[in-house]
Amino acid sequence: MEKKIQVNAAIIIIGNEILSGRTHDTNTSTIALWLNSIGVKVQEVRLIPDMQEIIINTVNLLRKDNEYVFTTGGIGPTHDDITAESISKAFSLNYEIHKEAYKILEAYYKPGEFNEGRQKMVWMPKGAKLILNPTSGAPGFSVDNVFCLPGVPSILKSMLGGLKNEIVGGEPILSHTISLRTVESEIANSLTAVQDNNKDVEIGSYPFFQAGKLGVSIVIRSEDKSKIDICSNQILDFVNQKKIEVVSRD
Amino acid sequence: MEKKIQVNAAIIIIGNEILSGRTHDTNTSTIALWLNSIGVKVQEVRLIPDMQEIIINTVNLLRKDNEYVFTTGGIGPTHDDITAESISKAFSLNYEIHKEAYKILEAYYKPGEFNEGRQKMVWMPKGAKLILNPTSGAPGFSVDNVFCLPGVPSILKSMLGGLKNEIVGGEPILSHTISLRTVESEIANSLTAVQDNNKDVEIGSYPFFQAGKLGVSIVIRSEDKSKIDICSNQILDFVNQKKIEVVSRD
Repeated sequence: MEKKIQVNAAIIIIGNEILSGRTHDTNTSTIALWLNSIGVKVQEVRLIPDMQEIIINTVNLLRKDNEYVFTTGGIGPTHDDITAESISKAFSLNYEIHKEAYKILEAYYKPGEFNEGRQKMVWMPKGAKLILNPTSGAPGFSVDNVFCLPGVPSILKSMLGGLKNEIVGGEPILSHTISLRTVESEIANSLTAVQDNNKDVEIGSYPFFQAGKLGVSIVIRSEDKSKIDICSNQILDFVNQKKIEVVSRD
Repeated sequence: MEKKIQVNAAIIIIGNEILSGRTHDTNTSTIALWLNSIGVKVQEVRLIPDMQEIIINTVNLLRKDNEYVFTTGGIGPTHDDITAESISKAFSLNYEIHKEAYKILEAYYKPGEFNEGRQKMVWMPKGAKLILNPTSGAPGFSVDNVFCLPGVPSILKSMLGGLKNEIVGGEPILSHTISLRTVESEIANSLTAVQDNNKDVEIGSYPFFQAGKLGVSIVIRSEDKSKIDICSNQILDFVNQKKIEVVSRD
């Protein structure tokens, strides 16, 4: 059987508001879950400030090491929105009016509303491919393997669907979660044995508190469902032996 | 007047569960808000997988570029908890039983409960300084300027207070938020003018949706309150001129 190639991605979250702690980043989770479903694994995420040099360096580093790079934030109309200009410089492309984007926004806004601020949003790297925005008009864009999305979570979510044909993933990454009424230290050795027996499967252990009770979620991840099933059975074996309650499986 | 030196930190979020999208990272925001309050600015955050080589390289890179580095995750009892061993290797220190941590956990657990799994949590880099854990016993630790905290948000939060004397920050970073009933494009040019007039103040513009209405929060950040006040007044000037409603100020 042919070995499945792992397809990797990196995410760059651009914005001082995330680094200041004022805003929680939820876009990482949205993008990562969606990428998993089409067989792409997020290998690294970087949260960086609105600084041109840092954006350029980070993009140029990560686009070489990953099949795909996603950026979020910094493509709006205000002075701190510098992603499009930075990406232009990263690729040594002109930063210019994108004619198709201009047409889209000209049609989107009422007459007179397509003002100077909004017109900033059609400035992009020369030759950029648009990512359509069904929520609020202003498109994102991609250059080569770098996909630039907005920072507002609901708008970003609505734009991912349109990207599906642009991304070629490997096998979808499947996961199975077994939640137990126990603490990690009770199962640590048994779980290590299962991991040692199944080195190519990713097994994670995550304590949780729910309704005042402690528990542990064991997450098994692989592209191969039969491997997940094998691990799952080995885990349930020791869980039964130890008489640990299974809270849920999904 | 002496120039205030900016004190920078980086955060490394360790854990496959974050990269898979299964778990939202909230620790970045917790640590960043706390650091701001003691005058430390988070310059970069990296989310990385549970892989020893990546942890070592990331820690060794960021600890040179920042006054402080914080890691979260990977210090529990299970096989995927490899932060302490990785930090030992990053600093070329022995990975060994920390006697003080051993005593703390021996006293914390009931007789017979301090089992092999739990004993893994007292293995640390030789000479590590403990970070006490008032919630669940098992301490974090620091080596040089690298502070290793757990991944569980409620436990991490309870441990930050004990670190205050270990961190020497600059002036606290103050912020003022003005929330307006408008859209970004209406104020983009005026806001750019304010930013141009006040280049050493960080001004961010963040659209929001609340109760079905659009708005924009303008966040002004500086170590100097008088500079924030100047910007704030310049912003309120154009807001009044444009007859834009101020939703809140805080």
